[in-house]
Amino acid sequence: MTSTTAQHPTPGYDALTRTWSRLYRLGHLQSIASWDQAANMPPKGNEARGQALAEIAMLMHGMRTEPGLESALQRAHEEPLTDTQRANLREIERDWFRANALPAQLVERRALVTSHCEHAWRTQRQANDWAGFAVNLKQVLEVGREEAKYLSERSGLSLYDALVNKYEPGMRSATLDRIFGDVKQWLPGLVQRIADKQSREPVIAAVGPFDRAAQRQLCEQAMRLLGFDFDGGRLDVSSHPFSGGAPEDVRLTTRFRDDEFVQSLMSTIHETGHGCYEQNLPRELLGQPVAEARSMGIHESQSLSFEMQIARHGGFVAQIAPLVRTAFGGQPAFETVNLQRLLTRVKPGFIRVDADEVTYPAHVILRYEIERGLIEGRYEVDDIPALWDEKMMSLLGIDTRGNFRNGPMQDVHWSIGEFGYFACYSLGAMYAAQWFAAMRRAMPTLDADIAAGNLAPIFAWLRENIWLQACRWTTDDLAVRASGETLNPAHFKAHLEQRYLG
Amino acid sequence: MTSTTAQHPTPGYDALTRTWSRLYRLGHLQSIASWDQAANMPPKGNEARGQALAEIAMLMHGMRTEPGLESALQRAHEEPLTDTQRANLREIERDWFRANALPAQLVERRALVTSHCEHAWRTQRQANDWAGFAVNLKQVLEVGREEAKYLSERSGLSLYDALVNKYEPGMRSATLDRIFGDVKQWLPGLVQRIADKQSREPVIAAVGPFDRAAQRQLCEQAMRLLGFDFDGGRLDVSSHPFSGGAPEDVRLTTRFRDDEFVQSLMSTIHETGHGCYEQNLPRELLGQPVAEARSMGIHESQSLSFEMQIARHGGFVAQIAPLVRTAFGGQPAFETVNLQRLLTRVKPGFIRVDADEVTYPAHVILRYEIERGLIEGRYEVDDIPALWDEKMMSLLGIDTRGNFRNGPMQDVHWSIGEFGYFACYSLGAMYAAQWFAAMRRAMPTLDADIAAGNLAPIFAWLRENIWLQACRWTTDDLAVRASGETLNPAHFKAHLEQRYLG
Repeated sequence: MTSTTAQHPTPGYDALTRTWSRLYRLGHLQSIASWDQAANMPPKGNEARGQALAEIAMLMHGMRTEPGLESALQRAHEEPLTDTQRANLREIERDWFRANALPAQLVERRALVTSHCEHAWRTQRQANDWAGFAVNLKQVLEVGREEAKYLSERSGLSLYDALVNKYEPGMRSATLDRIFGDVKQWLPGLVQRIADKQSREPVIAAVGPFDRAAQRQLCEQAMRLLGFDFDGGRLDVSSHPFSGGAPEDVRLTTRFRDDEFVQSLMSTIHETGHGCYEQNLPRELLGQPVAEARSMGIHESQSLSFEMQIARHGGFVAQIAPLVRTAFGGQPAFETVNLQRLLTRVKPGFIRVDADEVTYPAHVILRYEIERGLIEGRYEVDDIPALWDEKMMSLLGIDTRGNFRNGPMQDVHWSIGEFGYFACYSLGAMYAAQWFAAMRRAMPTLDADIAAGNLAPIFAWLRENIWLQACRWTTDDLAVRASGETLNPAHFKAHLEQRYLG
Repeated sequence: MTSTTAQHPTPGYDALTRTWSRLYRLGHLQSIASWDQAANMPPKGNEARGQALAEIAMLMHGMRTEPGLESALQRAHEEPLTDTQRANLREIERDWFRANALPAQLVERRALVTSHCEHAWRTQRQANDWAGFAVNLKQVLEVGREEAKYLSERSGLSLYDALVNKYEPGMRSATLDRIFGDVKQWLPGLVQRIADKQSREPVIAAVGPFDRAAQRQLCEQAMRLLGFDFDGGRLDVSSHPFSGGAPEDVRLTTRFRDDEFVQSLMSTIHETGHGCYEQNLPRELLGQPVAEARSMGIHESQSLSFEMQIARHGGFVAQIAPLVRTAFGGQPAFETVNLQRLLTRVKPGFIRVDADEVTYPAHVILRYEIERGLIEGRYEVDDIPALWDEKMMSLLGIDTRGNFRNGPMQDVHWSIGEFGYFACYSLGAMYAAQWFAAMRRAMPTLDADIAAGNLAPIFAWLRENIWLQACRWTTDDLAVRASGETLNPAHFKAHLEQRYLG
């Protein structure tokens, strides 16, 4: 991709791809060291790790802000590029723009305060220590606000949109307001109707304890069913499940509890969706931005395709039920019909990552509203608990007062400065429903295939329409090419109604 | 350490410490990524990992060869430095010299070919595939010879000495020839006398299989007895045991076999010696070269203090025997007297890392003679098997023909280009004996202390005399300060005679 014919030299573009190849390689070390920090690192290693990650972040920031790049970008725009090269140039420019909007000193401070806050959060969360966490989070918020200010000034976007744009290019809070405003209209009623229906469907609870080695084995079996390549990735344990590493070496994490197995299984399946996307990005382009995942919303559309569209499909549950019985012994709870009821039970709860797909958007809307206020200066860190309590009560009827560890301390995102991310989860759920609607139009036997244990058509569709497309198109263009329309949340609502009230 | 009073500015020295602080931080990422490559990485990740490690090696090489450093070094020599700063300057200059002797292109090629060779070696060794390994090793040797040439030209040392000097500053092959020549004189006779004595001491073999989880637990118990701090380190599994990571986050590895437990236990104790050295380097100086381990010979003197001087001491075996019985159940083999006989059995064998301390020097002398010939151009890679066979037969009476996996493919060193390292193992064994001779002179109750399970006096001596001294002194000065004399191999011979014939 970097070479062109001698007749059409592209020195500007070539200079850019050289720099971004180097950034890709150094980014590999960042990813592995960050994964290790969460999955392996003993506590006394944290300070040195934080300094090391700050050092390389500084260094990469320096590479992205080399004075020569601006003229290389200008030259590249005049050069005879292929469509793929032009898409790559667009993504390089986006990365360049973001880096050049931030002073190096801010980048270093961001790495230091987020590393410190995240590490302390791990024990503070256990101890329900909001006061201790708030001290660190204030530093992180300060950095987040400065980042928003710089990005906003350079891009002309509003403060919060400037952050959203990092994760979901092109998405604006005006659109999110419209989408989430609509969801807030129909969600409480839908939850109520489903609760009424499910109250007439008895469900038998699974009886623990659930051996952790058996849980791990079950998770790995599910990952294999879902096409995860263990020759190019791993599953490990961390406080907060995530998908890390590099496309060539995907590092998924989960967490186990003795009294529960559904959460580890489902969070593993969620991360497997992220992992399969990464493992199937176009190999021949790896190392350049055009080969990266399209956006975090599209990334979440893959994790939620796996976790929600596939793993809670009756056909898939029938495949997994015998594996559950093998893992933990036979129980009435593990019969397919009951297991599916367990997996699709709708019940407002504290924890976002453990939420069912119906109440999930409420968790996202709550965070969206709070973090937007934080970035726009309307709220402060000390306001979070009261806001959290009020919104959890109004959206889901749950009392969270004083329960910080299962309230605003439950997620890692804010402690690592990822303001603007949460909306991507619900955008992902909506895109996932849109993809499956498109698949069913194209493949009328899809549900029968899933019931027969044949997931290959799904993977083939995702590979062709999402995974191999990487960053070749804008998100809107990707959606149109894959499904014939841009984001249409109606598919998500229809999916919920069909699955839970159909 | 980097700041001085306003009256005595040290701008040259300060510029150097800033660069070496940054190198320390980036080195942390190198170490963790390299450890991960050996302990965790799935096979498909290797190419990207190799490229990433090559990229950062290039980058660090660039930092070490910045044109401004030469004048900073010159200025620093004229500046009013403390003794510690002056020692740091000496070590910075040593590192600078080595890096500036090598062209960047060679550094990159070295990283790529060694990463490739080491990764392939892991499966080639299993398959006894010498022919496949030799193809890669030739590339590594070519790089090793070039490196020797560059280092030799700049330093005036001979080709091989220029490589030895990387690991054991100040050591020369003339000294090694003298030391190893002496060992070759007395070793065969000593082995024979010990074999005669031991043939009259019946020993009961331990009966496997040995549960791997129990082996791991036993290893971790031993590490705790030996003072390893698990809040600042870990134990994991890799093909070849090693000690990696950083002083703040020490990563030890071992390997387990179902039919054997002594090898995993003893290699873990060996690596624990390395790990405790790293964990006890002077914290206030960490980040600068003066805080690093003195040399690889001194490093091995710590691993061998733990593995040979302590772990095979009758007093320590009495401590570990009950743990062995708890791990694997009671067996006659696990009674203290028998266990010590098992641990001190002298028997020529194929594998260096599994060798007893008496035959061990033979393994080192063999590699020393071969690798010196390889670097000096007297031998080629294709000559190695025949040389190996001949020397194993003449030194230990063992026939290794065709057994490449337990012959020249048993070690990782050559595949990662570490020519010049092996001598450090025997130097370490000799220094370890010298340290314990010094300890016994200073602490006449030492053996009773060990028998009473009190290892604190040993750790205190090592901490004060070796660990906290780091790179403050040259190796010779360190040895004199610690033991009153420079390296004196007579202590090693006396130790063997005392333990095995006493």
